[in-house]
Amino acid sequence: MSILVVGSVAFDTIATPSGRVENIVGGAATYFSLAASYFTSVRVVAVVGEDFTAEHEKIMQNRGIDTRGIEHTKGKTFRWGGQYLDNLNEAKTEFTELNVFERFQPHIPRDFEDTRFLFLANIQPTLQAAVRLELNQVRLTGGDTMNFWIQNTPKELAETLKLVNVLLINDSETKMLGGDKNLPRAARKVLAMGPQALVVKHGEYGATIFFREGAFGIGSHPFRAPALPIDEVKDPTGAGDSFAGGFMGYIASQGELNREVLKRALFYGGVMGSFAVERFGTERLQDLTRDEIDARFQVFRELTHLE
Amino acid sequence: MSILVVGSVAFDTIATPSGRVENIVGGAATYFSLAASYFTSVRVVAVVGEDFTAEHEKIMQNRGIDTRGIEHTKGKTFRWGGQYLDNLNEAKTEFTELNVFERFQPHIPRDFEDTRFLFLANIQPTLQAAVRLELNQVRLTGGDTMNFWIQNTPKELAETLKLVNVLLINDSETKMLGGDKNLPRAARKVLAMGPQALVVKHGEYGATIFFREGAFGIGSHPFRAPALPIDEVKDPTGAGDSFAGGFMGYIASQGELNREVLKRALFYGGVMGSFAVERFGTERLQDLTRDEIDARFQVFRELTHLE
Repeated sequence: MSILVVGSVAFDTIATPSGRVENIVGGAATYFSLAASYFTSVRVVAVVGEDFTAEHEKIMQNRGIDTRGIEHTKGKTFRWGGQYLDNLNEAKTEFTELNVFERFQPHIPRDFEDTRFLFLANIQPTLQAAVRLELNQVRLTGGDTMNFWIQNTPKELAETLKLVNVLLINDSETKMLGGDKNLPRAARKVLAMGPQALVVKHGEYGATIFFREGAFGIGSHPFRAPALPIDEVKDPTGAGDSFAGGFMGYIASQGELNREVLKRALFYGGVMGSFAVERFGTERLQDLTRDEIDARFQVFRELTHLE
Repeated sequence: MSILVVGSVAFDTIATPSGRVENIVGGAATYFSLAASYFTSVRVVAVVGEDFTAEHEKIMQNRGIDTRGIEHTKGKTFRWGGQYLDNLNEAKTEFTELNVFERFQPHIPRDFEDTRFLFLANIQPTLQAAVRLELNQVRLTGGDTMNFWIQNTPKELAETLKLVNVLLINDSETKMLGGDKNLPRAARKVLAMGPQALVVKHGEYGATIFFREGAFGIGSHPFRAPALPIDEVKDPTGAGDSFAGGFMGYIASQGELNREVLKRALFYGGVMGSFAVERFGTERLQDLTRDEIDARFQVFRELTHLE
C-alpha cells in the first residue's frame, strides 16, 4: 500500500572529510521518499520555492514518487548548510534559511485522502498532528521529532505523540524525551506517552525497537538490528530519514502488521541508511535496485545470525 | 581446557550514580577469571601486597579458580579509585596507586606450563610478550591493551601483537592503534599487525569481531553481537574484562576452534559483561549459575534473530 510523507524538501550545502557539495536537493521528505520508493508507492507533501525547478523534482519523479503534494510558492526553498568533523556522527550547522518552510501549512491533495500509511517527518508537532487528523483512513503513523521540539513545545509534542504509532528518534532524543539517562527506562516512559513502538536509532551501531506491552503481539522484548560497518562514510546527511523510509516503506509493502514485519523493517531501515551514507546527498538512493537492497539485507542478517 | 590469565588484581574504590564502594577486590584478572570460571577451569598469574588476605583470595577460590600464580609480596596491593558520571560510559580516575604492581614480573608456576589458552590482560606489552614466550604449548592467545601503551610503547606493543591471536579492545583504542578514524579500515590495519581476529567492544551496543582474510575458516565477513539494553547499570567497572572472560572462557571450553565457536563466544562475552554491570564490583559474577548465563544467551540471540 502507498505511504504518504510530510516533511522538508531543501537545498543542502554539505562539507565532510570526503568533500563538499553545494545546493543539492535534500530534506527529510526527499531522503524518506527515495528510500521508501524501493518498497512501495510514495506520496510527498512539502513546500518549495521558485528556485526549485522541474529538474529538481525529477529526482523524486524518476523513482515514481507522486509529487503532486509538493506546493510551489513564492520565495526561496529551505536551505541548510553543515559540516561534519572527523567522527561523522554529528553535523555542525553552518546556516539555516527556513525561507518558504517557515510558513509551511501542509495541503493534502484530495487524491491522497485514502492514505493508510503515514510518516510525519521532523516538523512542528502541531502541523504533524493536523496532518494525521485530516487523514482518517490511516492504519499506521510513523513519526520523527528532534531536541528543539522536545525542549520548546513539549505540550504540543505530547498531543502529537498520542497520534503516532511508531516513533523513530535517536538515543539522545529518547533520553531527553523520556527524562531518563537510562535507555530502556527512557524508552518505557516514551511509550507511555502514546506510541505502541519506539525505534531508537544508534547511528553506526544500528537500531533498537521497543514495544509497549502486548503491542503488535505477545510480550514486550525489544529487538535490535545491527548496522554494517562501512569502509567509507562519504556523507551522513539523511541517514536517519533514509532509515525511516526503508522501515516504513517495508511495513507499507506488507499485508500484515505484526512483530515479525516490524523486525524485518528494522533491518531494512538499517540497509537503506547504510546505502545513503555511501555517497553525497541522495545520489546513492537514486540508482539502487531491489536486488542490491535484498543482498545487503542478507549481509546484515548474517552479521548477527548464529547457526 | 583450562585458561590462564595474567593481569592486575586490585582494590577499587568506585562511585557511580547508584552508590559508592571502597576497597573492594577488583582488577582485570579478577573480573576475567570470575567470568571465565563458568565455562572452564581458570589459572591466575598476578601480584598482590600484604593487605590482600586469604579472605580476599577466597572470592576467586570459591569459584574453583587456581590462585597459586598470585604472588604475595611486601607492600600494598594496586589501588584504583574512579567515578562514573551520568552516561556511565567513561570512568574518571580519581587516584591510581600502582604499589606492588609497579614492579610486577609475572612468575608462572611449573604446573601451569601446559597452558593451551592464554589471556594477556592489560599490562605492559613487554611483560605480555614474555609470558606468551614462556608458555610453549599455547594454542590461542587473547590480549588486551589500552591507549597508554598505544601512545607510549608502540614498538613494544607491535612485538606483542605478533604473538596475539585475538585482540580485544574498544572502538577508540582500535581507531588509535590502526591510525584511522573509520572503524573497519582501522580494524584491517590492526589485523595486519598480527592478530587473526580483532574483537572491538562497543559498550552498551555490543561488540564486533573482524577476521583476517581466511583466518578461522573461509571469508572475512565481520560478525556482531548485540548487548542487552539494561535497566539499571549499577557499576560499569570490569565490564570489558568480564566480556573477555566470557569470550575466552567459552572458546577454551570448546574442542574446536572455528568461526562458529568465535561467534558464540562473542555472544557469551556480551552476556558476562551484562551481568557484571548489574551490581557493584564483582558481586554479580560471584553467584551466577550456568542456567542463568544460558538463559541470557538465548535472550541475546533472540534480540537480533529473524525467523
